[in-house]
Amino acid sequence: FSEPRTVVLAYSGGLDTSCILVWLKEQGYDVITFLANVGQDEDFKAAKDKAETLGAKKVFIEDVRAEFVEDFIWPALQANAIYEDRYLLGTAIARPCIARKLVEIARREGAQFISHGATGKGNDQIRFELSCYALYPEVKVIAPWRIPEFYNRFKGRKDLMEYAQKHGIPVPVSPKAPWSMDANLMHISYESGILENPKQHAPADLYMMTKNPEDSPNSADVLEIEFKNGRGNHGVGRIDIVENRFIGMKSRGIYETPGGTILLKAHLDIETFTMDKEVRRIKQGLGIKFSELVYNGFWYSPECEFVRHCINKSQENVEGKVQLSIFKGQVYILGRESPKSLYNEELVSMDVQGDYDPCDASGFIRINAVRLASPQPAQSSLSMELF
Amino acid sequence: FSEPRTVVLAYSGGLDTSCILVWLKEQGYDVITFLANVGQDEDFKAAKDKAETLGAKKVFIEDVRAEFVEDFIWPALQANAIYEDRYLLGTAIARPCIARKLVEIARREGAQFISHGATGKGNDQIRFELSCYALYPEVKVIAPWRIPEFYNRFKGRKDLMEYAQKHGIPVPVSPKAPWSMDANLMHISYESGILENPKQHAPADLYMMTKNPEDSPNSADVLEIEFKNGRGNHGVGRIDIVENRFIGMKSRGIYETPGGTILLKAHLDIETFTMDKEVRRIKQGLGIKFSELVYNGFWYSPECEFVRHCINKSQENVEGKVQLSIFKGQVYILGRESPKSLYNEELVSMDVQGDYDPCDASGFIRINAVRLASPQPAQSSLSMELF
Amino acid sequence: FSEPRTVVLAYSGGLDTSCILVWLKEQGYDVITFLANVGQDEDFKAAKDKAETLGAKKVFIEDVRAEFVEDFIWPALQANAIYEDRYLLGTAIARPCIARKLVEIARREGAQFISHGATGKGNDQIRFELSCYALYPEVKVIAPWRIPEFYNRFKGRKDLMEYAQKHGIPVPVSPKAPWSMDANLMHISYESGILENPKQHAPADLYMMTKNPEDSPNSADVLEIEFKNGRGNHGVGRIDIVENRFIGMKSRGIYETPGGTILLKAHLDIETFTMDKEVRRIKQGLGIKFSELVYNGFWYSPECEFVRHCINKSQENVEGKVQLSIFKGQVYILGRESPKSLYNEELVSMDVQGDYDPCDASGFIRINAVRLASPQPAQSSLSMELF
Amino acid sequence: FSEPRTVVLAYSGGLDTSCILVWLKEQGYDVITFLANVGQDEDFKAAKDKAETLGAKKVFIEDVRAEFVEDFIWPALQANAIYEDRYLLGTAIARPCIARKLVEIARREGAQFISHGATGKGNDQIRFELSCYALYPEVKVIAPWRIPEFYNRFKGRKDLMEYAQKHGIPVPVSPKAPWSMDANLMHISYESGILENPKQHAPADLYMMTKNPEDSPNSADVLEIEFKNGRGNHGVGRIDIVENRFIGMKSRGIYETPGGTILLKAHLDIETFTMDKEVRRIKQGLGIKFSELVYNGFWYSPECEFVRHCINKSQENVEGKVQLSIFKGQVYILGRESPKSLYNEELVSMDVQGDYDPCDASGFIRINAVRLASPQPAQSSLSMELF
Repeated sequence: FSEPRTVVLAYSGGLDTSCILVWLKEQGYDVITFLANVGQDEDFKAAKDKAETLGAKKVFIEDVRAEFVEDFIWPALQANAIYEDRYLLGTAIARPCIARKLVEIARREGAQFISHGATGKGNDQIRFELSCYALYPEVKVIAPWRIPEFYNRFKGRKDLMEYAQKHGIPVPVSPKAPWSMDANLMHISYESGILENPKQHAPADLYMMTKNPEDSPNSADVLEIEFKNGRGNHGVGRIDIVENRFIGMKSRGIYETPGGTILLKAHLDIETFTMDKEVRRIKQGLGIKFSELVYNGFWYSPECEFVRHCINKSQENVEGKVQLSIFKGQVYILGRESPKSLYNEELVSMDVQGDYDPCDASGFIRINAVRLASPQPAQSSLSMELF
Repeated sequence: FSEPRTVVLAYSGGLDTSCILVWLKEQGYDVITFLANVGQDEDFKAAKDKAETLGAKKVFIEDVRAEFVEDFIWPALQANAIYEDRYLLGTAIARPCIARKLVEIARREGAQFISHGATGKGNDQIRFELSCYALYPEVKVIAPWRIPEFYNRFKGRKDLMEYAQKHGIPVPVSPKAPWSMDANLMHISYESGILENPKQHAPADLYMMTKNPEDSPNSADVLEIEFKNGRGNHGVGRIDIVENRFIGMKSRGIYETPGGTILLKAHLDIETFTMDKEVRRIKQGLGIKFSELVYNGFWYSPECEFVRHCINKSQENVEGKVQLSIFKGQVYILGRESPKSLYNEELVSMDVQGDYDPCDASGFIRINAVRLASPQPAQSSLSMELF
Repeated sequence: FSEPRTVVLAYSGGLDTSCILVWLKEQGYDVITFLANVGQDEDFKAAKDKAETLGAKKVFIEDVRAEFVEDFIWPALQANAIYEDRYLLGTAIARPCIARKLVEIARREGAQFISHGATGKGNDQIRFELSCYALYPEVKVIAPWRIPEFYNRFKGRKDLMEYAQKHGIPVPVSPKAPWSMDANLMHISYESGILENPKQHAPADLYMMTKNPEDSPNSADVLEIEFKNGRGNHGVGRIDIVENRFIGMKSRGIYETPGGTILLKAHLDIETFTMDKEVRRIKQGLGIKFSELVYNGFWYSPECEFVRHCINKSQENVEGKVQLSIFKGQVYILGRESPKSLYNEELVSMDVQGDYDPCDASGFIRINAVRLASPQPAQSSLSMELF
Repeated sequence: FSEPRTVVLAYSGGLDTSCILVWLKEQGYDVITFLANVGQDEDFKAAKDKAETLGAKKVFIEDVRAEFVEDFIWPALQANAIYEDRYLLGTAIARPCIARKLVEIARREGAQFISHGATGKGNDQIRFELSCYALYPEVKVIAPWRIPEFYNRFKGRKDLMEYAQKHGIPVPVSPKAPWSMDANLMHISYESGILENPKQHAPADLYMMTKNPEDSPNSADVLEIEFKNGRGNHGVGRIDIVENRFIGMKSRGIYETPGGTILLKAHLDIETFTMDKEVRRIKQGLGIKFSELVYNGFWYSPECEFVRHCINKSQENVEGKVQLSIFKGQVYILGRESPKSLYNEELVSMDVQGDYDPCDASGFIRINAVRLASPQPAQSSLSMELF
């Protein structure tokens, strides 16, 4: 081709994607960089300058925090989204947010290629690329860490440093933390490096988003729930887990999600207070499905769209206030109230009979026992178990 | 009948079941009392004397703590049993343990009747009776709080007190707590009374099994997991929820489950470490089913027996050690190790390629995108959503 | 009360509900009868006259066929609703249709009571009553077959006949079929009587809605799907099953659902043709839930409303034509076409490579094998199984 | 390498795998062929001679019919395995059976490679290879239809024919059917070619395993279920569907599964007759999971092994006899009996009260209505829907 091909690179400003920027130029691409502000702690101006210096044809930095909250965090909260019972999916929901903007820029700029610096063993490559393919089916993805010419040339950090020095890429002066991080306004994740040994405890100074509970205030904060940006004073939301990646490996991750954890606990509480129990059972199953889909990168899939629609429907009456206390790493629900409450104090009261006939319960129990009390073959084992 | 009918009464030693004991005698029954030691804080000797004084024909007090742990707590732990995302089912699993012994005594003593003091609006009546009907299909249950002659006669505590005084039943000297409790070695639950207002915060002095986190030690305990009797020094395991009873009411409960909470978190961790991810997905669904069944009183049902069997099968390789820290109401997982680990440090390492070809991920992602990237009707809405 | 209480009776015109009509009058009620035309073969004029003769204060006969199809059959079809893998729920979906009209009349006429002739062991009592309580929470239900004074007085058909003769109720001249039936435009069910022996084959002359396949035409009808009233010339839709009632008994039912069966098979076909596979997986689970809810009588429940909403959403692109052949009791799908098809002939063709790189499948398979090929503890049992 | 590498080729005797055999030799491999007898109609002697003539180093033909039935068909039957509501998985369960033997031979013969002739767009490549990787993690798979040098050389049947003539491979004299087939003792599948147009009806002479229902006997066969080899005289078991492949394409398949269909219907019947309803609900979900796993090629996975174990457990009491009639393409259940029946004729009888108190149903219904009858926000929409 005489005409140069254009690639939009998801650029972080760090060593890896700076080297990728230069390498893509070497391969003959015009490179446009895109850096999303999802609330991470970053010198965006410096990153912009760096990309321009390194020869990016255009440099986009966009603040997507509002849509991150609106279109991604709220749906995840509605779903009580948790992967494998513990991980609140802070990175997994940021990826489709970033990818959507990436695609928007690529389409607008007429770029046929998208590139990123995600590794070949992780989940993020999948989350980025499935999002891109879904939203821009004709796009071609360039994933250098899966291209032999790239990963054989850059076998370790040392190779990247040498390449950086040779090509005028500013080299980080402070030593790299011995793990990798991903941060946004909802959470920070920590993985790899010394954390790859699952028995190795996390160093005390690893956590950046939450105070150490031992150093946190000696008195609780009592709140009615407020939706703020999620910086945490009380050490809430730290977890350390071994989880299952989509590609079939177990990996160890450490996460801190202070605001998200508080919101989740509050949402769980108000949801049970205002939602019919059988609707909630069904919705709980959909929430587990949603969490898997999002973790695996299928945000922009027909099934995830369908599940989001259903979960959203389930939330119509989920409103009210939750009072809670936050103290030393823990969230305590104290009380709740709602104009849409399905709680009926008179009905449930042990002191008032209300519009409830206790005799009905006898029939209810006996009918439920019809199936259990039959002198049937299946029961014989129970009898044996008994004596 | 000239021959007296015999009833085995689940006796607590308290005012209610003492009145029931005497009332059953009034109705012409021979009353045998049974009090199970499931680890609650109780003066069993005093209860025994009281029952005998009140005219019980026989008085049984049995220590079922070992079988409670062995046959009920362990299966619940294997299931990661949680009802409606929060309640660890400490009362729900004690009921079938007690009922099994009740039935054993009733059969041995030739009693055709079983009685209990559970109310007509709660879950425990169901748990007791379904267990009894399943294990002793011919039994007749006498639930005074559902019998009009009884509940119309005893409309409040005052009526019970008067009846007690009239019939020589010792009346409690200290005033009753303004809520009801159920305790065993795994947990204490608090409900009713002033707690029936879901907005009302729990009084600070309500909790009996855990220290207030604010008063708990200022340094963490670091453990390798140990299976102890579950008294909690660190304020771990307090929850306050509105939950859905089987009979269709929402009720508010406060629970403390210190040891159970620690064990659950540790079990979750070692399970993900040693269990295949797809087995775990299926097992997670079975665990949710198990929790509902147990909450609703179906421990002795063919389906619960089936689910327990399946969950038990899933645990064959779940072994290893979890290191954790307990501090101020929270449990922190620090690390884990296992001879049955499915974690493959070399495979997952970002620093070592191992026996893994990153190019494979490209094909994996593209095949997963086949369905998403088609220019199909279903995608049109996504495109619209995008711009 | 000096003022008479008013009851709306779901009246069939048969012996049972005629006796109930008179009996309710004996108990001092003003009786309004309601007979719904859901497409059954009935002399509605005769039933009207009969009810008036027997002293009904008002007699309502309403044609609800259109709303039965629109509001009940179509949602069930969308759900591919089948109970326990076989029963198409023809009676279960008619009950909430009839109950809705019953409630409408009761409210309009200021009646505080509703009555029906369903037995105390069946599903229909539950379906009627849950519908009534949901739509008219203050209503009182009178179910004579569960009232000792009634069922002890009428222990068999002979007692009813005597009562009928004594009270001028016309007595059926032709002997009753030795089973009971329920018919509507979608199906006929047969149960009880000689069918209670599950080994006893159904008599050849039992079926009224479908021709015996042996006597059916010797050439097939080839259709593009048409939505007609469901009378069947080809013997399609007969089943004989033992099913599980909500109240925990197994019962034997024989059903014929000619049109419904054809529609179901056609709908299954066009659905898979036009719906994303993962959406369909989720929707399949919701359909099973829907079927249970409807069978158990929970049409008017928050959860059934929620599930119907979700299923309805899933059907947005389910349109097209299905060609099928009907012959001797069987439906054969021949072909299908749709403007919303997700079938991509070029993509799937074995003769054209299309926009598909077969190499991708290698990566896809190897990544899927990462989890399976690890030399892990779990695999040892497989190896043992192998040799 | 001076030492030749050995590959075991899954050989069918047809044109494709004969060409692959020779092509593999061209690439320098020692080729061992393996042809499994899974009940297909094949001249095994001729296939053996052909492979030897073409230079196979060793030729294995093994009769795996007994283990196919024992280890694969029976578990699928226990699961009532059906993919996407219709396909009985006749091919999907044969693949792991064949692969297991392939691996056994490869290990015994010290072969490091396995090869097959499955295409790059289908399911069978996945089923073969996941099975091989699971059972023989170190194996390398050679899939020529995914290797550019191969598929670019053989772009159509014409290229294969030319290659065959050039290398002395016998060329089929009769023209190839315009679709592809896969047959075993359970079923035959037909796909591709002219069937790729989903609107195109299947030709009448396509079906080889079942008589055309129009030509089938004019009288029914009445059986008690027998487990025979599944050739069908009555046209039972034909289906025509569009299904979803694992790789995300929809494809059209036509299947005939005469014996399997009869067995499935009989098994469904006896299962409901002898299995508790709630156990069956859970087992039904596991059966759907099993079907997906098997369709997608995960027979030898921890999760499929787990699900098979659970399903097998559920079948402990599933025994008895089913009487059925087979006529013109349809199976009719006539009656059933079992020593393990959970059907209680007295309990269910409308003519006998038995040990059942109809009053209990009143309480049962009213308690079930507690949640529905509350004058709650969620109900308002229902009320609106009503009027």
